[in-house]
Amino acid sequence: MTRQQLIDAIKTRKSFLCVGLDTDLKKIPQHLLKEENPIFAFNKAIIDATAPYCVAYKPNAAFYECQGLKGWEALEQTVEYLRKNYPDHFIIADAKRGDIGNTSKMYAATFFEQMNVDAVTVAPYMGKDSVTPFLGYEGKWVILLDLTSNPGSQDFQTVTDANGMPLWERVLRVSSEWAGTDQMMYVVGATRGRAFEDIRRVVPDSFLLVPGVGAQGGSLEEVCKYGMTPDCGLLVNSSRGIIYAANDESYAEAAAAAARDLQQQMETLLPF
Amino acid sequence: MTRQQLIDAIKTRKSFLCVGLDTDLKKIPQHLLKEENPIFAFNKAIIDATAPYCVAYKPNAAFYECQGLKGWEALEQTVEYLRKNYPDHFIIADAKRGDIGNTSKMYAATFFEQMNVDAVTVAPYMGKDSVTPFLGYEGKWVILLDLTSNPGSQDFQTVTDANGMPLWERVLRVSSEWAGTDQMMYVVGATRGRAFEDIRRVVPDSFLLVPGVGAQGGSLEEVCKYGMTPDCGLLVNSSRGIIYAANDESYAEAAAAAARDLQQQMETLLPF
Repeated sequence: MTRQQLIDAIKTRKSFLCVGLDTDLKKIPQHLLKEENPIFAFNKAIIDATAPYCVAYKPNAAFYECQGLKGWEALEQTVEYLRKNYPDHFIIADAKRGDIGNTSKMYAATFFEQMNVDAVTVAPYMGKDSVTPFLGYEGKWVILLDLTSNPGSQDFQTVTDANGMPLWERVLRVSSEWAGTDQMMYVVGATRGRAFEDIRRVVPDSFLLVPGVGAQGGSLEEVCKYGMTPDCGLLVNSSRGIIYAANDESYAEAAAAAARDLQQQMETLLPF
Repeated sequence: MTRQQLIDAIKTRKSFLCVGLDTDLKKIPQHLLKEENPIFAFNKAIIDATAPYCVAYKPNAAFYECQGLKGWEALEQTVEYLRKNYPDHFIIADAKRGDIGNTSKMYAATFFEQMNVDAVTVAPYMGKDSVTPFLGYEGKWVILLDLTSNPGSQDFQTVTDANGMPLWERVLRVSSEWAGTDQMMYVVGATRGRAFEDIRRVVPDSFLLVPGVGAQGGSLEEVCKYGMTPDCGLLVNSSRGIIYAANDESYAEAAAAAARDLQQQMETLLPF
């Protein structure tokens, strides 16, 4: 999906919500366990219920991998279902990959050829040649980890160099030379508040994928106040707050209500 | 596998060789493509041929994932085959994972419960809570990326802070507080030469997983001169140089010869 198509989807649906599909067999309604593939059955119902209120879905690879073959199959089925039924939704494989060039090439083939998602989250530690193999696909995106919402983000991401530049800023500056704002986004945690101002000074136009609203305590208003651009420039993710809004037979309705609630807040915060 | 068991294996086999199973359908002998699962058939033959000369195997997850379900199945079969037939060999899932705590927990379950390998490579960028979920398993290891062999390692890993400490050194110092030398190793590229001296000043006893000998141009003698400890403290990986030593029907014999050649060099370099 191109940048313009993504912006158009945000305008049409008046939403910049990304629904995180962190689907966990232990947390889904237990009546689904009798389905042939409970993970896919759950995802399908969640997607059908929330699609009008969001522009993106983000399956988290770890939750599928830990179910072995059955999980990997459910991930493929979920992406295929989205591609076929919701072609205007942006699909992010949240996989945090990154390795030397010939290996990153294989990961890129996995997600962009084998699975055909729109974007993959990538870790920056190994530098340019670990990221560029993901950039060889038209309309496909790298979403690079930058300043995350977890406590451990303080261990390395915020360390400053001799000139006072923190690592997260160097990651933005250096990686901006590898791709334009039509192929590269960044992960910035919602708990970062005013740090969004500093980030916008470095990457004024880049899209940011923002996890951490809801369960992790980030504020949607604050993220928008400091991080929004004239094109919106934000994809705000919510996972547990939507998909586990209820865990009985009303789970899909409850997910729709939670997604609609966020969409309505977003509508008031959009610049168009 | 415990640290003592690993050291014992090195002593018994007079080898600290790790064989990298970067199995690529395009590169394996083409007569194998008629097998039901060519990737597993290739791995099985390579393992049987090289096991006397090595102490570890390192399947690279990317090469399996990019084949979809069939690839994931081949990875599971390979680990199962190793577990059953070569219980004294150390198995590393080279997966470069790392995410917020509840997600890393899922990755740890994937590799340590679902697949039962001995170690997983992990990326440090997200800090402590992205790594510690992998440390909750007795006899299982984290192999943290530290100073890699690829050109992009210069982008962030070697950046120094206000006190002149490079990021790779901070990663060693900070992560040493998360686990002891019986649960944490580090990836250091073989092309680093004398940098091993600096690394040994910070982590004198830790095992290092060293890729980059062979295809990437690192020197075994130099790695040993500057990086070896009284316990050996090294696992030197070779992938392409062994598994693709020939690509006709003699591939397994050629792999055995390449592995034996490295083992014989290693025998002369060991401190015991």
